[in-house]
Amino acid sequence: MKKHLNHCIGLRFLDSEMIQIILKKAALIKQKKAIVDLSEKIIVQLFFEPSTRTRLSFEIATQKCKASPMVIDIETSSLSKGESLLDMVKNISAMNTDALIVRHSHGGVPHFISQQVSIPVINAGDGYHEHPSQGLLDIFTMQERLGDLSGKHILILGDIMHSRVAKSNIWGLKKCGAKVSVAGPENLIPSVIKEFDVDICENLDELLPTVDAVNVLRIQFERQHGISLPSVEDYRKSFGMTSDRQSLLKDHAIILHPGPINRGIELDSSVADGSRNVILDQVENGVYIRMAILALCLENQ
Amino acid sequence: MKKHLNHCIGLRFLDSEMIQIILKKAALIKQKKAIVDLSEKIIVQLFFEPSTRTRLSFEIATQKCKASPMVIDIETSSLSKGESLLDMVKNISAMNTDALIVRHSHGGVPHFISQQVSIPVINAGDGYHEHPSQGLLDIFTMQERLGDLSGKHILILGDIMHSRVAKSNIWGLKKCGAKVSVAGPENLIPSVIKEFDVDICENLDELLPTVDAVNVLRIQFERQHGISLPSVEDYRKSFGMTSDRQSLLKDHAIILHPGPINRGIELDSSVADGSRNVILDQVENGVYIRMAILALCLENQ
Amino acid sequence: MKKHLNHCIGLRFLDSEMIQIILKKAALIKQKKAIVDLSEKIIVQLFFEPSTRTRLSFEIATQKCKASPMVIDIETSSLSKGESLLDMVKNISAMNTDALIVRHSHGGVPHFISQQVSIPVINAGDGYHEHPSQGLLDIFTMQERLGDLSGKHILILGDIMHSRVAKSNIWGLKKCGAKVSVAGPENLIPSVIKEFDVDICENLDELLPTVDAVNVLRIQFERQHGISLPSVEDYRKSFGMTSDRQSLLKDHAIILHPGPINRGIELDSSVADGSRNVILDQVENGVYIRMAILALCLENQ
Repeated sequence: MKKHLNHCIGLRFLDSEMIQIILKKAALIKQKKAIVDLSEKIIVQLFFEPSTRTRLSFEIATQKCKASPMVIDIETSSLSKGESLLDMVKNISAMNTDALIVRHSHGGVPHFISQQVSIPVINAGDGYHEHPSQGLLDIFTMQERLGDLSGKHILILGDIMHSRVAKSNIWGLKKCGAKVSVAGPENLIPSVIKEFDVDICENLDELLPTVDAVNVLRIQFERQHGISLPSVEDYRKSFGMTSDRQSLLKDHAIILHPGPINRGIELDSSVADGSRNVILDQVENGVYIRMAILALCLENQ
Repeated sequence: MKKHLNHCIGLRFLDSEMIQIILKKAALIKQKKAIVDLSEKIIVQLFFEPSTRTRLSFEIATQKCKASPMVIDIETSSLSKGESLLDMVKNISAMNTDALIVRHSHGGVPHFISQQVSIPVINAGDGYHEHPSQGLLDIFTMQERLGDLSGKHILILGDIMHSRVAKSNIWGLKKCGAKVSVAGPENLIPSVIKEFDVDICENLDELLPTVDAVNVLRIQFERQHGISLPSVEDYRKSFGMTSDRQSLLKDHAIILHPGPINRGIELDSSVADGSRNVILDQVENGVYIRMAILALCLENQ
Repeated sequence: MKKHLNHCIGLRFLDSEMIQIILKKAALIKQKKAIVDLSEKIIVQLFFEPSTRTRLSFEIATQKCKASPMVIDIETSSLSKGESLLDMVKNISAMNTDALIVRHSHGGVPHFISQQVSIPVINAGDGYHEHPSQGLLDIFTMQERLGDLSGKHILILGDIMHSRVAKSNIWGLKKCGAKVSVAGPENLIPSVIKEFDVDICENLDELLPTVDAVNVLRIQFERQHGISLPSVEDYRKSFGMTSDRQSLLKDHAIILHPGPINRGIELDSSVADGSRNVILDQVENGVYIRMAILALCLENQ
């Protein structure tokens, strides 16, 4: 059994077995049955996009692994002034650092970097591509509540096109054997998605009684991407997880959200704080997932 | 004897006994008679207001307690874009962090947060309310030089209304049995202060020969608060701790300042660097006080 | 033999023996024959000028010495608002910190600070003066490839006047017994340089076959300093280390660059990535040099 992770670029590139290995490692860490000791390892977070939560979660994960976190915040503009991305990452790697956690507004950058350096690269979000640690923590939290996801039906609700969380969920959930549906404004669902054996929901209120979990995406009105969005009111009416919509769900169904929440838009406050929500479990589990990824990349080296 | 601190929101909320416990713990730490070991604890500094010194002092205190410091700088504006303060702190707490050090421009925010999370919250300055670790380090430094503060006479000099340092000093010094006077421009002394058994000084030069310590506040000309301030020249003439005024003090009287100093305005350079000043003692003692607060919040958990 | 370093302000102020001691210590660290243990030491980086690489290199060096790095980024403008530089550094020192790493856009600031505090001060670049750790890592890398530098001929190529890297190289290389030449636009070579037994190159292409190493400086077109610069094209034509120029070098000659590289301007990409370049060795060696400096300042205290 291959137990080592070279990089963590996307769930698209991990096979089912490796996904299960990461989930199991995270579970052992959560149950305090596995101790991770990466002392003397230097883990660099290279963030070309601002982040508070993902950065903090990786920093805490690094500390709990006894490694040393370093954070580099780069505005893409300053990079373009003089130095190539490639020179920068080769430099960081030359300083005998042990892993590189990369967030960038352009899809593909972590993959590109992983081909250029000899240390593990972990994608902390790249453009519209993937956010694999978020996908894994979502799946971990679903498994914790729903058991084996094989045959379970998961709905991803919101702006599928621009969400890297959606993409990582789709890749990962399919590899766990789940049935995946997506719902959202028509122009925010890429048609290519059908090729991945994902159902596009035509009628949200009819679908809700059939699902085991709803992963409600954050709608980002501040980024228009040149695509017309519905108004806040229309969005909430058509796709918001309101109290009424929540009541259509099966008794055991759970509601996830990657945060930060736009309360009253994609998620009603009563739902965000209600008994079905597992949002703070996701946040807690994120630390275990990130510790597991770091451990599988760096242990026994 | 209750030896555990749940939160440190303000000296207003701590009883005399707890204040003495903190001061004693800090003294033991300074004398190297107490070792604090908070290893594996994650201490998050959540700063909604910029800070260099207080942040550094807490970060050093955290390191010297063998805990891991994390710093989050938030501009209030960016918070208002999408996420509620409450969601943010619940998220940070969900990541299994161990304490939250909060600075905010609005009074009451650390208290509000402390009611929402299950980990200790330490106020690093909230609006015009309090800055309890500063109050405690001021008191610690006075005790070090003057002995038991019971019956000692302390003058707080400057903009009392807008100073959280003044408020924490008043609450703490009264609980230590000191006599407290305040002096400053009339419109910067809140009349409510009389209710707290604090004397308002009418004639500074007559009062100076009677006090054991003067805590000189920083005057912040850059923040006007809608209240008219005297000119720099007038302020110095009426309320500045000049070399001449210093000479009116008793031999043993000391001069404190929370920093950063406006040299030549509220404090003459010769006084700031003179033999009565204990300003760098305050800075050093700040680390011990903050270690003591962290220890009393987190030891034996 | 004096083995302790009080400060590291510039290679101008270190004697040949101390330079050799630092280089030897760095070599032992690189060969894993020396372990540095500065645990419980607090190392503060006080940066008045933005920096990514130098900051990261010092932060990694601090971690690898088991000490705790703290970073303070200050915009000079904010300092001028209220607090004197002197008050700030005395405060940082009063917090029982153990060393101060200072970068400032004005030459002389680290030296000034070193006279005011009782802890070691390490210059991480001051104006046009010096960048001693860069100078030492350049020399270390040259020695690694060329052996003893006594009698070797080193060319420094570019904007000598505004480069602190050039100054530190000149001081250090001369003390190692090397012959030093400089080349660059006439108005960017200070005439005073002749006093330091440095040759000013009149004809670059004639000189190249005689040198053992070329240290190619970064040309900073974004800073004009009131001196007219040639166009990018003219600069490359006259002083760029092009593929053609590289072919004029002796077989064993090496090419250094302090980074970040302006590819296609002072250095052709084929040269930057070619077999003569030791640029990533410089980056790696920088961590060992900085560990050695920290160790020699702080060990056995």
